[in-house]
Amino acid sequence: MSARIQENSKLQASPEAERRVRESFARQGLMSTLGATITGVGPGAVEIALPVSDGILQQHGFVHAGAVSSIADTAAGFAALTLMPADAGVLTTEFKINLLAPAVGDWIVARGRVVKAGRTLTLAQTDVFAEKAGQERLVAYLTATLMTVSGRDGIAD
Amino acid sequence: MSARIQENSKLQASPEAERRVRESFARQGLMSTLGATITGVGPGAVEIALPVSDGILQQHGFVHAGAVSSIADTAAGFAALTLMPADAGVLTTEFKINLLAPAVGDWIVARGRVVKAGRTLTLAQTDVFAEKAGQERLVAYLTATLMTVSGRDGIAD
Amino acid sequence: MSARIQENSKLQASPEAERRVRESFARQGLMSTLGATITGVGPGAVEIALPVSDGILQQHGFVHAGAVSSIADTAAGFAALTLMPADAGVLTTEFKINLLAPAVGDWIVARGRVVKAGRTLTLAQTDVFAEKAGQERLVAYLTATLMTVSGRDGIAD
Amino acid sequence: MSARIQENSKLQASPEAERRVRESFARQGLMSTLGATITGVGPGAVEIALPVSDGILQQHGFVHAGAVSSIADTAAGFAALTLMPADAGVLTTEFKINLLAPAVGDWIVARGRVVKAGRTLTLAQTDVFAEKAGQERLVAYLTATLMTVSGRDGIAD
Repeated sequence: MSARIQENSKLQASPEAERRVRESFARQGLMSTLGATITGVGPGAVEIALPVSDGILQQHGFVHAGAVSSIADTAAGFAALTLMPADAGVLTTEFKINLLAPAVGDWIVARGRVVKAGRTLTLAQTDVFAEKAGQERLVAYLTATLMTVSGRDGIAD
Repeated sequence: MSARIQENSKLQASPEAERRVRESFARQGLMSTLGATITGVGPGAVEIALPVSDGILQQHGFVHAGAVSSIADTAAGFAALTLMPADAGVLTTEFKINLLAPAVGDWIVARGRVVKAGRTLTLAQTDVFAEKAGQERLVAYLTATLMTVSGRDGIAD
Repeated sequence: MSARIQENSKLQASPEAERRVRESFARQGLMSTLGATITGVGPGAVEIALPVSDGILQQHGFVHAGAVSSIADTAAGFAALTLMPADAGVLTTEFKINLLAPAVGDWIVARGRVVKAGRTLTLAQTDVFAEKAGQERLVAYLTATLMTVSGRDGIAD
Repeated sequence: MSARIQENSKLQASPEAERRVRESFARQGLMSTLGATITGVGPGAVEIALPVSDGILQQHGFVHAGAVSSIADTAAGFAALTLMPADAGVLTTEFKINLLAPAVGDWIVARGRVVKAGRTLTLAQTDVFAEKAGQERLVAYLTATLMTVSGRDGIAD
């Protein structure tokens, strides 16, 4: 595993969007359980990195499709959140993920971006890479529909 | 949370299929990290249960779509494995999941079953329920394509 | 090709739902272009049949995935419509289809049913069969998200 | 409707790939029934255009999701075919399409490209635009899995 996580300096959101995404991410118990970290927030874009460890693998020693999906969905959802009204929350309504190659390496990195932001529904797409010794390989491709939720108790970000 | 996990007595696989699935499941670090358990293995069918705890939630207090997907994909994959040749391993090539309602409750239960088993590709479908005080509610619906992998080093189940 | 299309007598919707679906279907130019017919309307369920002819094939002589999808999506959408308020219209927001076997035969039959009806979004699932000499074979499996649209000019069913 | 279809001059495949795709496309009865045309073939990329007419609409006057899917799937499949061995044929095993906006305009244009070509499975992605008075608007986003089929009677392209 790399000694440390590098921030993606190309992603530069407003301070408000940056804070909003990082605070909501910090409330996700699953991200903490998996050991994932946000490494970049931009307008309509979010990057999340996950160090590879035994606790996220499947039976053949690859990173489990569920762990790959977890950070890919989260990157898509927060990418969408950066473009939503301040009083709204975000929920995933569906996603599809194609697993393109065994997820093997030091880090798994998910880069989500908004394809089209709508009033109610937003489409986002996430590329997931496995990084090994500084080389990245595309291992998964996710598309997700995110819903803008307003005025519902307990759903705000 | 319920005091204990109940086995699904309707699922009755052959002893070989039962052992094959449970041994492969036991090698999945992610299932152990999440706290998931197999509660039933049948011919072309597998059930997995996950107790709800803070470590699998998202920011609004619902079970994270990634955790729901993790057990739903695993149930689909092992359901497919029960019908595969003894020397083969199983890999997910893609899945779609629709999140139908907030996943809130004591347990999350995923019931996967094979829709059509092919030589190379198998389609499986998983219903995911949230159980609270003995009542079940459908919260997610997954379809997955599983590949039968033969003769590849390190991929056997 | 069979001499005639048989109605599915198991599907029995209310006269209002039946009329609503059949009138909306009759306004779909694509269904007429393909030659598709409604063969059943039930509560939360619709069946559509399509006779196989050269004009709906792909390059290997199978029914084109696009034609299969067209009737599968339509069956899902109208199944959802049977459960929607009288002043609402239905729009598909996404669907996934798995093609399970070459679509070869006399008729292609799509059977859609609602999995979960929500206020805004409904999930429906369609099985598609190829019928040849009275035998049916499952050739495709679709899941679709349908949106209930109210108060938008021009979108009513 | 525009007076004529413009070729996409940015797509430049080898003469062999160009011929292979156009000949296979010409054998698709459905494309002819819908009125679709190939407007570009590149390495790992194909563009298809469809003039809007009553015969491809749904009940609200938008282009039917089935017609949109038909050309989007075809563009994805032929994009994949350009990278396949000469003796292989292509089959779609699954696709998901997100409908992002009503498909209204003079032409519907689908631009497919390969995301990752594998030995057995290839992932392709298609953007679909509605063109009106020279302006394009993204109306749909498809991802498809294509299978390379070798040595099966009747499946060659």
